[in-house]
Amino acid sequence: MALLPQERQLLDLALQEDLSGGDLTTEATIASDHMGTAFAIAKSALVLSGAEIFSHAFHSVDAFCRVEQLVDEGQLVLAGTRLFQVDGPTRALLRAERTALNFVQRLSGVATLTRKFVDAAQGRVRICDTRKTTPGFRSLERAAVRHGGGYNHRDQLGSAVLIKDNHIAASAGITQAIAQARKLAPHTCRIEVEVDTLAQLDLALEAQADIIMLDNFSDADTQTAILRARGKALIELSGNMSLERVALIASWGADVISVGALTHSAPAADISLEIHEAGFDAPPVP
Amino acid sequence: MALLPQERQLLDLALQEDLSGGDLTTEATIASDHMGTAFAIAKSALVLSGAEIFSHAFHSVDAFCRVEQLVDEGQLVLAGTRLFQVDGPTRALLRAERTALNFVQRLSGVATLTRKFVDAAQGRVRICDTRKTTPGFRSLERAAVRHGGGYNHRDQLGSAVLIKDNHIAASAGITQAIAQARKLAPHTCRIEVEVDTLAQLDLALEAQADIIMLDNFSDADTQTAILRARGKALIELSGNMSLERVALIASWGADVISVGALTHSAPAADISLEIHEAGFDAPPVP
Amino acid sequence: MALLPQERQLLDLALQEDLSGGDLTTEATIASDHMGTAFAIAKSALVLSGAEIFSHAFHSVDAFCRVEQLVDEGQLVLAGTRLFQVDGPTRALLRAERTALNFVQRLSGVATLTRKFVDAAQGRVRICDTRKTTPGFRSLERAAVRHGGGYNHRDQLGSAVLIKDNHIAASAGITQAIAQARKLAPHTCRIEVEVDTLAQLDLALEAQADIIMLDNFSDADTQTAILRARGKALIELSGNMSLERVALIASWGADVISVGALTHSAPAADISLEIHEAGFDAPPVP
Amino acid sequence: MALLPQERQLLDLALQEDLSGGDLTTEATIASDHMGTAFAIAKSALVLSGAEIFSHAFHSVDAFCRVEQLVDEGQLVLAGTRLFQVDGPTRALLRAERTALNFVQRLSGVATLTRKFVDAAQGRVRICDTRKTTPGFRSLERAAVRHGGGYNHRDQLGSAVLIKDNHIAASAGITQAIAQARKLAPHTCRIEVEVDTLAQLDLALEAQADIIMLDNFSDADTQTAILRARGKALIELSGNMSLERVALIASWGADVISVGALTHSAPAADISLEIHEAGFDAPPVP
Amino acid sequence: MALLPQERQLLDLALQEDLSGGDLTTEATIASDHMGTAFAIAKSALVLSGAEIFSHAFHSVDAFCRVEQLVDEGQLVLAGTRLFQVDGPTRALLRAERTALNFVQRLSGVATLTRKFVDAAQGRVRICDTRKTTPGFRSLERAAVRHGGGYNHRDQLGSAVLIKDNHIAASAGITQAIAQARKLAPHTCRIEVEVDTLAQLDLALEAQADIIMLDNFSDADTQTAILRARGKALIELSGNMSLERVALIASWGADVISVGALTHSAPAADISLEIHEAGFDAPPVP
Amino acid sequence: MALLPQERQLLDLALQEDLSGGDLTTEATIASDHMGTAFAIAKSALVLSGAEIFSHAFHSVDAFCRVEQLVDEGQLVLAGTRLFQVDGPTRALLRAERTALNFVQRLSGVATLTRKFVDAAQGRVRICDTRKTTPGFRSLERAAVRHGGGYNHRDQLGSAVLIKDNHIAASAGITQAIAQARKLAPHTCRIEVEVDTLAQLDLALEAQADIIMLDNFSDADTQTAILRARGKALIELSGNMSLERVALIASWGADVISVGALTHSAPAADISLEIHEAGFDAPPVP
Repeated sequence: MALLPQERQLLDLALQEDLSGGDLTTEATIASDHMGTAFAIAKSALVLSGAEIFSHAFHSVDAFCRVEQLVDEGQLVLAGTRLFQVDGPTRALLRAERTALNFVQRLSGVATLTRKFVDAAQGRVRICDTRKTTPGFRSLERAAVRHGGGYNHRDQLGSAVLIKDNHIAASAGITQAIAQARKLAPHTCRIEVEVDTLAQLDLALEAQADIIMLDNFSDADTQTAILRARGKALIELSGNMSLERVALIASWGADVISVGALTHSAPAADISLEIHEAGFDAPPVP
Repeated sequence: MALLPQERQLLDLALQEDLSGGDLTTEATIASDHMGTAFAIAKSALVLSGAEIFSHAFHSVDAFCRVEQLVDEGQLVLAGTRLFQVDGPTRALLRAERTALNFVQRLSGVATLTRKFVDAAQGRVRICDTRKTTPGFRSLERAAVRHGGGYNHRDQLGSAVLIKDNHIAASAGITQAIAQARKLAPHTCRIEVEVDTLAQLDLALEAQADIIMLDNFSDADTQTAILRARGKALIELSGNMSLERVALIASWGADVISVGALTHSAPAADISLEIHEAGFDAPPVP
Repeated sequence: MALLPQERQLLDLALQEDLSGGDLTTEATIASDHMGTAFAIAKSALVLSGAEIFSHAFHSVDAFCRVEQLVDEGQLVLAGTRLFQVDGPTRALLRAERTALNFVQRLSGVATLTRKFVDAAQGRVRICDTRKTTPGFRSLERAAVRHGGGYNHRDQLGSAVLIKDNHIAASAGITQAIAQARKLAPHTCRIEVEVDTLAQLDLALEAQADIIMLDNFSDADTQTAILRARGKALIELSGNMSLERVALIASWGADVISVGALTHSAPAADISLEIHEAGFDAPPVP
Repeated sequence: MALLPQERQLLDLALQEDLSGGDLTTEATIASDHMGTAFAIAKSALVLSGAEIFSHAFHSVDAFCRVEQLVDEGQLVLAGTRLFQVDGPTRALLRAERTALNFVQRLSGVATLTRKFVDAAQGRVRICDTRKTTPGFRSLERAAVRHGGGYNHRDQLGSAVLIKDNHIAASAGITQAIAQARKLAPHTCRIEVEVDTLAQLDLALEAQADIIMLDNFSDADTQTAILRARGKALIELSGNMSLERVALIASWGADVISVGALTHSAPAADISLEIHEAGFDAPPVP
Repeated sequence: MALLPQERQLLDLALQEDLSGGDLTTEATIASDHMGTAFAIAKSALVLSGAEIFSHAFHSVDAFCRVEQLVDEGQLVLAGTRLFQVDGPTRALLRAERTALNFVQRLSGVATLTRKFVDAAQGRVRICDTRKTTPGFRSLERAAVRHGGGYNHRDQLGSAVLIKDNHIAASAGITQAIAQARKLAPHTCRIEVEVDTLAQLDLALEAQADIIMLDNFSDADTQTAILRARGKALIELSGNMSLERVALIASWGADVISVGALTHSAPAADISLEIHEAGFDAPPVP
Repeated sequence: MALLPQERQLLDLALQEDLSGGDLTTEATIASDHMGTAFAIAKSALVLSGAEIFSHAFHSVDAFCRVEQLVDEGQLVLAGTRLFQVDGPTRALLRAERTALNFVQRLSGVATLTRKFVDAAQGRVRICDTRKTTPGFRSLERAAVRHGGGYNHRDQLGSAVLIKDNHIAASAGITQAIAQARKLAPHTCRIEVEVDTLAQLDLALEAQADIIMLDNFSDADTQTAILRARGKALIELSGNMSLERVALIASWGADVISVGALTHSAPAADISLEIHEAGFDAPPVP
């Protein structure tokens, strides 16, 4: 599957910002016909994501680079695992190296952190991303979340209805806001409402909201809310979720926990590129 | 100062991926002539960066938005501080909110983490970024590092010479690699070499490298290397630097410590946007 | 509200394809400081849409053009109505004229045709667009449909689930296809299924599809299907809908009729630009 | 022949607006290694146009799609005719389907309507397009007009001289306007003038205009004008031309009839994509 | 008048390639609130062109820059003449300086060289450009040629018909080639043919070519050709035209001399930017 | 090696400005399946540069074009030398011809002029480019300079420090300016200062500037300055360098002479494309 047009634009921005001045170090020291083989290697345990754009980074620099993916996206691998083999002119390998790694490290970082949250949820509640993605990386990071075992929330501001406090304040109440949104929204959209209190929850249920997001509820109120909503609406929990808190609340019966940190604060996965000469007989990885 | 063309392209990518489907929630609930005032507020201590692109996000959505910056970039502020005031049509505030915050949270995250490293260095050694930046964010994140009190390494692959093990391997030795690079490089470039051993260090010094990066040296060898290079070349330390390690080695006499994590693993700063109606008499922030 | 980034890109493509060779006719005959006033006038009854991009076409050619919108989008006007007044350098008016009109004529054409379908539906069923939009015009044409009183279907391929015959064929049946989609889809998405027979309808209802699209059902089966689905799923009718057929079936109780022709076959609305000299005392329009 | 750069940009806009949120329906129901064969089939009689961009839509989504064109552009085919065979991963076929069809349906619609006008003209007068094209589709729609047997008018505003009433008004008369334009225009350009009256026609002929466009002339005046211009200038007729009117006036001796509706109001041709499994033994089309 | 979209894209490419790494020299030495006034000054006699893009370069870097044009485009000025005054933040002046000058120096170079050819032609023959323009600069350089007093040839490959030897060779002769082209070309296009011999000239005249380009004719044949074509076709002379040769042949009666060197080999005009502090009382220019 | 993203964008701009109106001449006279072979031939002695983008121009127009490079970049060839062979559909050869030649003629022009300066320098001093490049051509022209045997100065405004008179004026003196720049600049950057007098030179040497550019020094002062700087700083000479002047001063001991004319005033190299039919048995070039 090819990159989406905007993903290619992002890759172009990235190559341009790193390469427009050339690579004099390599031109000074490595012959233009020197061929190499490189392995991208996990330096710590990680869940792979970003294989497509990793490959395109090399192809964009030199169409003669060949990238072989050695591990499936979504797979958890141990430190030392070879993720990709790349063959091509050594100059091209060195030019694309940093950009390719910057993408795959970030995206695998997202997948790896998502996996930790998914593990904490023990299969009892969906772990879901938010719109707090790296600007320009929406589609890539949503895929990384899926590779980590998580689920996606709405793709864009406009692909679902999510009524927040500001909308409620401007509409004379939850009931009206839900009614107005239902009247206008595509029939394919569910209606989600964020509520602050149990009283608001009751209004939202009465107005037949499809999904209700609890904002800063106490533990007791959260549990009450989940019980009240059962069978009537999906319940989504949100707001500063740590791994510990997810583990704690996963079993309470909510349908979804959405976690901004999956995409805005995932540390990069540690991956490095080792370059050998072409035809090199690679030693076994322990 | 305007955004650079590639920064505008990145902003456009970000707006497009979030807004191309419109915002039916807001259109359903908020009148098109409803005016609002919003404050971007630090929810935890942070160093601000990204003010320019934060402002442009709102202007790009609606030219009638007015953004006032309340805090200088590079300034450390406490939780609760108001960073920006934004006035404009409430619909526009809600459309731009997420993209604007995604940028400023990420960039302030970089500045904030940099400040922590700079503090750990106690002014005894430069803290410096790397090319491990978020793809497409090179210029923005380099500025964020400066706002955090750090320094920039080379902007691009080609704006300086940095000879690594692969280059050395392909050139019959450090001495030749340095000579070849000096022969080709612009006279404005310094020559930096990465070395693995004290023996390589000696060769690099003899070949008059301007900067020497020590890779995985033991503490003892690091200290020996710094002594040997004194007055002959700058010494840069690199590789998996934690705050604790920087605090430990800052006083050993190296010139630069470069830290990839500044840009590849900084958690987002916590900033939220509170929207009020226009003309609203904002309460004092405690 | 500003244009979306992709709408600006489309406008740029349009200006570029018409203007890159300049306008020698105008340069030969009209002085560079000649100011003019132009009125965009409906030559037949129409529903206006496309005001924003009409204005931007003039601003993009010359920032000194001033465009005043005289009629609200979504309003039905009679032949002879002035829609916009544009003031600016006459050369600029003539350069932007064709592109600006090409946009507003097409988009008003969509809004006008939509209005006819909405009138035929007599408020008894939603008239809804499809993804059969002019390539590059998705957001503009969806707005035009709303201006005509219609509703939008999903914005993109991925913003809702719509299971068609190909998906069913590849999944061992409707029941499995619905189950698989529900397992993967964002919790904000409703699940829609296209069915060919009443038997498939029953399976879809049993699998709790949220929306069911009837494909080529006979009139009798359509009416049966609507009765069976009542209270269990929304019913969408689709396929070669004419104004006459919509009028006939509007009252049968379906929830949505989707009409590809709204966007793929709407004739352009007839609008022309009359240019006067600046300061011209415009005669009253009868 | 490859797409022009701006055609690729338009295709990218179109793919992006439909695909940026992915295709969860297909991912949920169809395996990533499932291969398919699809046929694009005319559902009513049409003249084919848009083959190149139809093919590129599939290639852009997945480089492994193979598109075979079964009918030449410009050929009139009956309902039921297979136009293209597309082989590739079924997921890719489903992702590109809508965008590819949206292009080829629109462009074949233009070619088909043009053919009707050309038939009405019985070879006695050129049928010609205008600049009233879909914004961004200029080169594609001009080719479609040629595929339908029509001719192109000037490509851009600046690639020929066409003096209209506004130019005349600003230049102290037709004679001066023609003289000024001839003085400035490239020597490769013919000079065309739009006239309202027989008196203006005489002035234009005297000033040696190469082409004269008659605007809203009565039938009698049109015939007089054609006689007077014979051998001195080409005559172009324009303005709200229906098929019936073209049939009526085709034999009067004008050189060109230009028809805006060819591009601004052509209904989409009806084409659908039928997807089979790979290796499928397609049944004969009756 | 605004820049065309493709001119803005070119300006963006230019700013990006010079500025993406920032301007540390200026940031280190000049305060961000330091205001300056700059004058662009001709260092040798020149004809000005490129004013619009010169101004936009400053505006693109900082919207607060104000550019006042002191000399009309197309005007010949002496060394020492002030061409523009630019006021704005000194940092912005220094950032945009090089890009703005690179444009205006190149375009004024084209205008200045054109003026020399026009002067050599003494008003007896049109001096005309070719398609040998700097890639990306077509519209800008065509304007520069007009500013120098020259004329434009066709804007694009497709905006006129120019039959060359390759076309003739592939068409069984000049007569057929002209007939085929006339049959297909827009009625707004003149037909130009390049001929190698007087015999070909005669065929071209017989086939009623509108314009004939003489390729490598001897002086005697050129004069014969001009006589034969008089009143029947325009004659264009082309091929390695020097100022001396133009002066020699200008009076022979040809209609057009086209000169590739106008755009492919014009030396840059010498223009420099002198920056003063804001409020500076500029000394009189002698 | 592929083109950089911005080089592809420039190529797209160039193809678009020449080809958006098609090529009716060729379509009228040459069959779509006609295959041709073309040779790009040097019409005068030149140093080749621009091979990559020359090839991409043909590939962009038609992926079936095959380009074989017959001469290495940087090689000086005599008039008559074949530089490239291009095979492909004749229509494609004719469409891409002008754009491909416009690039390779300009870039070979730069390489050829550079070679002349390098020859004049007799290996005693580096000949170096400046930032006075054609806007959008920075990376291409820098490569052309290297192909001519020259060296590159800083790639961008921000990739080195170059302190000029304006910076000095705003910083209370050379000493402070150098100190401020060193404090801020990346440790990989050398510090260059432009000086007007020997007194400034002394200050710059004292402040340990790495490189000193002499601006408008008399011959005597130039020689003095070179002696004083020996072993302390590199000396760069700049400003209106002719071939004669370079030959004169090359032996004085400066390190670098930078020449803006290399890129802003190089006349295009003379290269033409000769097209034969495919399978054609090309005659030997004398």
